[in-house]
Amino acid sequence: MIIVLKAEVTKKQVDHVVTKIKELKLKPVVSKGIERTIIGVIGDEAEVRLQPLEAFPGVEKVMDIQKPYKMVSRESRHQGSTFDLGKDVVIGGKKVVIMAGPCTVESQERIMKLARLMKKSGATVLRGGAFKPRTSPYDFQGLGEIGLKYLAAAKKATGLLIVTEMMDVRDLPLFERYADIIQIGARNMQNYNLLKEVGLSRKPILLKRGMANSIKEFLMAAEYIYSQGNHRVILCERGIRTFETTTRFTLDIGAVPVLKSETHLPVVIDPSHPAGKRAFVPALARAAVAAGADGLIVETHDKPEEAVCDGPQALLPEIFDELMKDLRNIARAIGRDI
Amino acid sequence: MIIVLKAEVTKKQVDHVVTKIKELKLKPVVSKGIERTIIGVIGDEAEVRLQPLEAFPGVEKVMDIQKPYKMVSRESRHQGSTFDLGKDVVIGGKKVVIMAGPCTVESQERIMKLARLMKKSGATVLRGGAFKPRTSPYDFQGLGEIGLKYLAAAKKATGLLIVTEMMDVRDLPLFERYADIIQIGARNMQNYNLLKEVGLSRKPILLKRGMANSIKEFLMAAEYIYSQGNHRVILCERGIRTFETTTRFTLDIGAVPVLKSETHLPVVIDPSHPAGKRAFVPALARAAVAAGADGLIVETHDKPEEAVCDGPQALLPEIFDELMKDLRNIARAIGRDI
Amino acid sequence: MIIVLKAEVTKKQVDHVVTKIKELKLKPVVSKGIERTIIGVIGDEAEVRLQPLEAFPGVEKVMDIQKPYKMVSRESRHQGSTFDLGKDVVIGGKKVVIMAGPCTVESQERIMKLARLMKKSGATVLRGGAFKPRTSPYDFQGLGEIGLKYLAAAKKATGLLIVTEMMDVRDLPLFERYADIIQIGARNMQNYNLLKEVGLSRKPILLKRGMANSIKEFLMAAEYIYSQGNHRVILCERGIRTFETTTRFTLDIGAVPVLKSETHLPVVIDPSHPAGKRAFVPALARAAVAAGADGLIVETHDKPEEAVCDGPQALLPEIFDELMKDLRNIARAIGRDI
Amino acid sequence: MIIVLKAEVTKKQVDHVVTKIKELKLKPVVSKGIERTIIGVIGDEAEVRLQPLEAFPGVEKVMDIQKPYKMVSRESRHQGSTFDLGKDVVIGGKKVVIMAGPCTVESQERIMKLARLMKKSGATVLRGGAFKPRTSPYDFQGLGEIGLKYLAAAKKATGLLIVTEMMDVRDLPLFERYADIIQIGARNMQNYNLLKEVGLSRKPILLKRGMANSIKEFLMAAEYIYSQGNHRVILCERGIRTFETTTRFTLDIGAVPVLKSETHLPVVIDPSHPAGKRAFVPALARAAVAAGADGLIVETHDKPEEAVCDGPQALLPEIFDELMKDLRNIARAIGRDI
Repeated sequence: MIIVLKAEVTKKQVDHVVTKIKELKLKPVVSKGIERTIIGVIGDEAEVRLQPLEAFPGVEKVMDIQKPYKMVSRESRHQGSTFDLGKDVVIGGKKVVIMAGPCTVESQERIMKLARLMKKSGATVLRGGAFKPRTSPYDFQGLGEIGLKYLAAAKKATGLLIVTEMMDVRDLPLFERYADIIQIGARNMQNYNLLKEVGLSRKPILLKRGMANSIKEFLMAAEYIYSQGNHRVILCERGIRTFETTTRFTLDIGAVPVLKSETHLPVVIDPSHPAGKRAFVPALARAAVAAGADGLIVETHDKPEEAVCDGPQALLPEIFDELMKDLRNIARAIGRDI
Repeated sequence: MIIVLKAEVTKKQVDHVVTKIKELKLKPVVSKGIERTIIGVIGDEAEVRLQPLEAFPGVEKVMDIQKPYKMVSRESRHQGSTFDLGKDVVIGGKKVVIMAGPCTVESQERIMKLARLMKKSGATVLRGGAFKPRTSPYDFQGLGEIGLKYLAAAKKATGLLIVTEMMDVRDLPLFERYADIIQIGARNMQNYNLLKEVGLSRKPILLKRGMANSIKEFLMAAEYIYSQGNHRVILCERGIRTFETTTRFTLDIGAVPVLKSETHLPVVIDPSHPAGKRAFVPALARAAVAAGADGLIVETHDKPEEAVCDGPQALLPEIFDELMKDLRNIARAIGRDI
Repeated sequence: MIIVLKAEVTKKQVDHVVTKIKELKLKPVVSKGIERTIIGVIGDEAEVRLQPLEAFPGVEKVMDIQKPYKMVSRESRHQGSTFDLGKDVVIGGKKVVIMAGPCTVESQERIMKLARLMKKSGATVLRGGAFKPRTSPYDFQGLGEIGLKYLAAAKKATGLLIVTEMMDVRDLPLFERYADIIQIGARNMQNYNLLKEVGLSRKPILLKRGMANSIKEFLMAAEYIYSQGNHRVILCERGIRTFETTTRFTLDIGAVPVLKSETHLPVVIDPSHPAGKRAFVPALARAAVAAGADGLIVETHDKPEEAVCDGPQALLPEIFDELMKDLRNIARAIGRDI
Repeated sequence: MIIVLKAEVTKKQVDHVVTKIKELKLKPVVSKGIERTIIGVIGDEAEVRLQPLEAFPGVEKVMDIQKPYKMVSRESRHQGSTFDLGKDVVIGGKKVVIMAGPCTVESQERIMKLARLMKKSGATVLRGGAFKPRTSPYDFQGLGEIGLKYLAAAKKATGLLIVTEMMDVRDLPLFERYADIIQIGARNMQNYNLLKEVGLSRKPILLKRGMANSIKEFLMAAEYIYSQGNHRVILCERGIRTFETTTRFTLDIGAVPVLKSETHLPVVIDPSHPAGKRAFVPALARAAVAAGADGLIVETHDKPEEAVCDGPQALLPEIFDELMKDLRNIARAIGRDI
């Protein structure tokens, strides 16, 4: 940590900060420059980060040198994490994992039909919401446990794994029973009680990045889960909020190489939510695989006109099937596979 | 609702949309322009909004005419809502309500001392967190119920009302017992299960705007609470996330007149979180009162160097006291009071 | 155009708007809904858009139906524009055009060396700045005309075409002499006098998107150039400004499919400026080709430590050479080539 | 400057950086921490900032300690700049300077009428564009020199000073003749050739912040003008681009205290462009004065329905007159005046 002092700092103020650092059993190194005096702090920043050093008189700003995330950082583990999601589906390895399905589970018949189509095209995980976070209290809120049961039936019929979103800390037992991968949605990325709860689960977690959260905050949220003992955390970039409105969100494709350099956790891209319109989804999906994503999670629907949510961004199964061919070719072009 | 069709739309596609609208018992009005055909939908948009019309073939985009929020909208109630928070503290009226106190409750002694100082300067509500949403799992997470008890003691001693943040749906009984106003934090603005839970409470709710949420989403979140039957919702703007980093967030001061025109609910400003540094807080607080806010919620601390959170942005009690004088003068300059 | 009136609009106000529309020789269609009265305007919006209808009493908002850009829109020309840049280099066709070279021209020797290396790896256009827009007045501002001469020499030696940035309206004759493609930088995207000036040139223009400009504004800027008679406009997405700071800008990869659907002009991606660090450049370059970009413009340098600008984001020639192999494979995977 | 090295840095790489710093006649201080080695650089950062140190092998990041702006910084001049704009109008002092008038000069009659009304309400500077930066090439582009002449006539009749926007480097002689204050618009804030040109003028410059420019870039743009010898630079915050769309831009009210702490230059707020709608302008104007702005620049129009630009955000003269009373009261409440 580097503490930059104000131009007009007094000796007494410098001593006050130095004393505080020594109290914390750390080593201060004072260095006088031509415009500023700075204090370098040698030792573990974790402790000193808890101190409001910017509140000390004479301090202009405090700059971190160490990363605030520890266990999920690439430095703590140089090799990328590779782990099993169930039924031999491995994420973080050579194969790009494709998760696909509807925004929400609508009926047993439909989810069964879609599951079969997704499976045929090469997906290995089925997505579908049973509990839905909806902007309006008047929108459809999901089928609840019934939805989870339909997903379980689709899994039984096809062998696909199930990823589905959990929103309420009280629902963990339900998700332990029915889900293979528990999704934490973008709107709950900083719902820390929920993060702690799923940190106690032994199911893999698909953690979506909040629409206005920095990479650093994203990794801190992952650290919440990881530090509780659940090490199977998958990071999912799904578009951030910017001034641009022709797409629903702005896919931060740069997050792929950044996350790959900052953390050992696998990285998945959701090309559907940032697109907002189905016509834009394939380009984003292709870009994601080319950029090096370990997986994709894509919304599909056989009758988008009847979809109770996100119909406009759902791919038709036949378009999804064509897209899968492109994705496979791109994966191979960069030494991977699907 | 206006449905804009693509330039190359076919008659069959137009008919298909028209049929759907009639099925919903609404009246479609087709109008051919020189570049585009559009369909106006006459009737209640609530029903049609649930349909994924943008997923219909030939549809380019769908534009809402009606507001998606109903009960909290200014149109549903032309006069601003004015309501009692307890002990004759009224929000939404002529008097600007000042809420002040530390980021988090640290000890009984300190909260008592601060409560007395805030009271003396003219605050009527004491703020202080007992459960804290922290970006890092390694940061102090709050005293929990003990903290709530200390707040209750401070209330008893000073007569100040208590506003404090609730993060977990399971904690409502605790907050019903100790809090006068339940705060929903920015990170939980779209935690819909939490919104529904406090919608069932009879305590007033201070709802903070999410750092990347639009005014429309903010009002939809308020509608979640309001539509459950809890009509005492206070909206709090606390800074949005933008590219600018010299302040911690960007205070959206324009939200004050916008909210005043869109909703009848009272509007409060938090000048501390957007500032991030105490030197910038007074200017934002003065601006908020001049812009027409119904209240302020300000962080203060008698020893910011010892604060376990947000020390750098906490005002010293003596600075807060001076600020209160300015605020009172500004309030009077525009026909209000503090 | 749709004019939405306020809930409390009077008959007199409606008539006043209707009269205005008729004066403009357009056809107003008044339609009363349950919450709002709206007026549809039939005819060419270009004229009515110049009227401040939102300033009329009783008007709540005005919604455009037609696109404000005409000549560059995909509707005005269904097939994508394909044009020659010189020496048989065609943009907008099957081949992805690769432009590469240093941020700025530093010396004849270096630009010559880099040109030869770029050529060898498969680039067909050499980039390099002679006039540089620098954030600080104390930074190196470019070699000026000398730099252009060095570029011309490199062209003569290698056959590569030259793309270089013009910043001053007075410099057009210089650029007509030395450049093959004139670049308008992101900071000048709304410098309308400059746009008009290059609209009179017969050189192709590479127009970079401003860091905070919407797709619509980007296309309006292209329309400025196009409507002056210069139809060879290439659009370049180079990252937008968002809250995320781990990359220098956020590459808006979604702009590729959006632009492809909105305009017939070719689309190029600059992966270097959004990355900011060379380690992130290859992933963005690969994503761009996979998303369907018609070209790339990449910064390279043989001795980044000696670069007078943007050294940290410049690729070493050997890394660029490897990247080119990946890009060629990806291009072929989606039916294109490099 | 602090150079943070990568965890895996080699001794050779450290030595290489150290050698470079010594070559620049600066003093490197190497400090080994538990996770990172860092190198502090003692001496003038200006020189070292020109070096691409982040491009050196083993370097993770480079953090500035010194400010890149020198002459405009508050450190270079502790007291705020106060200067004369002409005719005893002083900016930066106790009196808040009010600039008001139409978006664009439309006719001699109208500008004369508006000038008289503004003067009567207490404005001391008349605003009005003769050359207009318009997003669309099909919009009205201003009256040009004729517009400047009308402004001059209004000045003669009322004694108001004239502020008007210059867009083209070739127009300086015209502006020297007719304007009292030359405005550089938001879209040209990083048009460095234009900044250098007006830096050679002896007229005061009103520099508007670009819609996506950081405070640091804003001050660097001011430094461009200041370092050419023109010290009368006024900074104008006019709203930044964010995700929020209910207002045209988001007024960054926090920029007032931030700029006051970072620079000695006077700060003016434009409440009209961020508002976008006249109903929101007064709240922003009041907030600006309360926050400590040294001036306001407000759009007004006597017949907004006939305005050729920005009619919806123009205040009617009678509303402006009322607003002026509020502003005067607020100014006095904080010890200033209008």
